Amino acid sequence: MSIIDTVLEANKGYAQEFALDLLPGRPVRKLAVVACMDCRLTVEQILGLQPGDAHIIRNAGGMVTEDVLRSLLISHYMLGVEEIMIINHTQCGMMTFQDEELRRKLQALTGTATITPSGFWAFRSLEEHVREQIQKLTSHPWIPDALPIRGFVYDVKTGKLTEVFV
Amino acid sequence: MSIIDTVLEANKGYAQEFALDLLPGRPVRKLAVVACMDCRLTVEQILGLQPGDAHIIRNAGGMVTEDVLRSLLISHYMLGVEEIMIINHTQCGMMTFQDEELRRKLQALTGTATITPSGFWAFRSLEEHVREQIQKLTSHPWIPDALPIRGFVYDVKTGKLTEVFV
Repeated sequence: MSIIDTVLEANKGYAQEFALDLLPGRPVRKLAVVACMDCRLTVEQILGLQPGDAHIIRNAGGMVTEDVLRSLLISHYMLGVEEIMIINHTQCGMMTFQDEELRRKLQALTGTATITPSGFWAFRSLEEHVREQIQKLTSHPWIPDALPIRGFVYDVKTGKLTEVFV
Repeated sequence: MSIIDTVLEANKGYAQEFALDLLPGRPVRKLAVVACMDCRLTVEQILGLQPGDAHIIRNAGGMVTEDVLRSLLISHYMLGVEEIMIINHTQCGMMTFQDEELRRKLQALTGTATITPSGFWAFRSLEEHVREQIQKLTSHPWIPDALPIRGFVYDVKTGKLTEVFV
């Protein structure tokens, strides 16, 4: 049985007990979280969030890319979100390789060069990375100055969030 | 108390009971899920996933953007993921507006034009949107032909996933 078939079986059980049909489409707690895709970051559990509470946006590294900016603008202007958290984490896979090395590896493996994606955005310093993501948002002309944007490091060994100040 | 301060309080309780310090950084079930940021999609619950099981990648619409492609390449080649699910959902906010209308609104509100993000990518047909996302992946030269990539619609009124076939 494939992995996907297994989780589809789990979803059948979930749907049988489903009682969340009245959840609103706008996040009840007006929060958006940008976090890494890492398998250890079960964002809702870490923050005590319930279904319906918040927008969760995730990618490799918990980076503010053009796509994340797009999502956050929709989140704020169309769906009423009023605070933004950025969460990076210790032992992130993005600190274990170099962009050019991965690009060369994929070109060699597939025999094809491509310019998309334009980068993988591996990084070295965790706190510095969080600060850069906050700054990318605060410097954008469509992100209101009054919108609270705060950054954190999640420690995968303790479950604890520590704030990173710009 | 701000929303963020409230979830930080919740995280203190979470960290006190934390017992997941031995979770591996590579997803145990070798699955990556691309889903919408929507507050009703608690992806792990819907799929019966535990912390450590899977990479979760989320943005507005559950779209395969350049950023998602970047994340999936890292997920597969660096972190051993072997199957990919794409999950869009009924009543998605992305079907309720038009790109140009939102762009004009933000320009008027802020008095500033900007080319980033280059689009918001609102869409009209849910099944067609899922198919397009699968095709964006399968047509990329660095996504192996043998990698299973399957797309689904999540029904926010029933909790059920329905597969969309290309």
